[in-house]
Amino acid sequence: MIVSIQGIKGSYHHMASQNYFGKDIILLERDYFPQVFDDVESGRAGRGIIAIENSIAGSLHENYDLLLKHKLFIVGEIYLRISHQLMTLPGTELSEVKQVLSHPMAIKQCRDFLDKHPDWEIIEESDTAGSAAKIRRERREFSAAIAGKIAAEIFDMDIVAESIETNPENYTRFLIISKHEDYEQECDKTSVVFTTEDHPGSLAKILAIFAETNINLTKIESRPIIGQSWKYYFYIDFEAGIQEPKVQKALAAAQVHAGWIKVLGSYKHGEHIE
Amino acid sequence: MIVSIQGIKGSYHHMASQNYFGKDIILLERDYFPQVFDDVESGRAGRGIIAIENSIAGSLHENYDLLLKHKLFIVGEIYLRISHQLMTLPGTELSEVKQVLSHPMAIKQCRDFLDKHPDWEIIEESDTAGSAAKIRRERREFSAAIAGKIAAEIFDMDIVAESIETNPENYTRFLIISKHEDYEQECDKTSVVFTTEDHPGSLAKILAIFAETNINLTKIESRPIIGQSWKYYFYIDFEAGIQEPKVQKALAAAQVHAGWIKVLGSYKHGEHIE
Repeated sequence: MIVSIQGIKGSYHHMASQNYFGKDIILLERDYFPQVFDDVESGRAGRGIIAIENSIAGSLHENYDLLLKHKLFIVGEIYLRISHQLMTLPGTELSEVKQVLSHPMAIKQCRDFLDKHPDWEIIEESDTAGSAAKIRRERREFSAAIAGKIAAEIFDMDIVAESIETNPENYTRFLIISKHEDYEQECDKTSVVFTTEDHPGSLAKILAIFAETNINLTKIESRPIIGQSWKYYFYIDFEAGIQEPKVQKALAAAQVHAGWIKVLGSYKHGEHIE
Repeated sequence: MIVSIQGIKGSYHHMASQNYFGKDIILLERDYFPQVFDDVESGRAGRGIIAIENSIAGSLHENYDLLLKHKLFIVGEIYLRISHQLMTLPGTELSEVKQVLSHPMAIKQCRDFLDKHPDWEIIEESDTAGSAAKIRRERREFSAAIAGKIAAEIFDMDIVAESIETNPENYTRFLIISKHEDYEQECDKTSVVFTTEDHPGSLAKILAIFAETNINLTKIESRPIIGQSWKYYFYIDFEAGIQEPKVQKALAAAQVHAGWIKVLGSYKHGEHIE
């Protein structure tokens, strides 16, 4: 299986891929999310894995927009605990660290730990695993990277301070995307995007249909429709598979109040990887 | 009236303040949004103006989070057409421009225009008006800034290319915040934030209450609750004033299905300034 990710080996996307597909995959490492979507659309990759939401930072809106732009399908999801490790070249002690390199988001999430070391220079890099790679490549003895455990394995680094994130309730939800509707049997979650008819209450009416059909919404996200001020695409996730008759019934009823509606995919509720 | 804004004189926030309050205001120019909230909370400023949503880029999630963190009230709103101008020191011709300075978002929104000038160096700055200020301060003859018309007035610059944004449907919605519930009479919009009870369909049930009461929702936004994975605060705006009996009735009914609910403010539907 060829899997396209944004990031390099050792990144949280890589960790998510290994947990979902196992270690026997070929990884396409991309700089930007649109390249991941292109890889899957063109067939260069059989699957893509994209972060869609973090329990602290919220949704990755770019990826919601890309899901709409590309004709791809969500066929799986996985939740990964984001636990940041401070790592150095083997031999460097914590007390010798002078500089810390990482992505700005990881730096922010480790703020309490970093505040205990006010003498450290903080250097923002474009990604977490890349920071570890840089320290390895440039043999920087007095630098440490904040990255996931997998980066320490890949770049042969020593973890000098474990789980340094301020808030342990830090999870990222990743979606698995495919060119085709390769849904598993017995899906129990579905993602849909729709626009509302231009009359009062159409959003509430659509959501009420799901409630009346006993379908539980787990997420709602609104994104602006470019070129139509103050109109939105609504993305919803709910706990029922596309093969269930009640879902078909609800979607048909929702159609009446929706300007337009599209099923983005259906899949099994993702595992939480600690 | 003392008004606190994020940005300097000549910024879009300044433009919004002038359009809402008139020119007779004292401006507190702040680097960051939390400072604006602090100014209003402490009484240093009578009002703050904050961008909350752009018709192209979507919501400013930081400001949704700040509305929840601070005990302030929304007492007004205004919509501003964001029209970007290319400006230089007087005397510089368009053909002499070698560098363009602006905020990354403005640069992105003028991409089509900039692509016609592939020889220009693009320099990212922290804000639009600040780019104009820098060119003025450093007397940079071969530089141009992308900023709003008001920046050209404030920094005595010449507009050498007008309305260079790719998409003219570019509006920003600003909220006016106050320490007290100084609501105008006859408000016709209200903003509310709530959490849902932990049982299936509670979000849909709450929204259905507004639909049944003939209250039209204009916006829904979800934000993660930090420390409680996959739980959300829901922000809604609807077209009815807090003084209307049907609003009181709907809020009381919604309370049953909400974990917690708070009125963020009530105000008159904002003018669109072209």
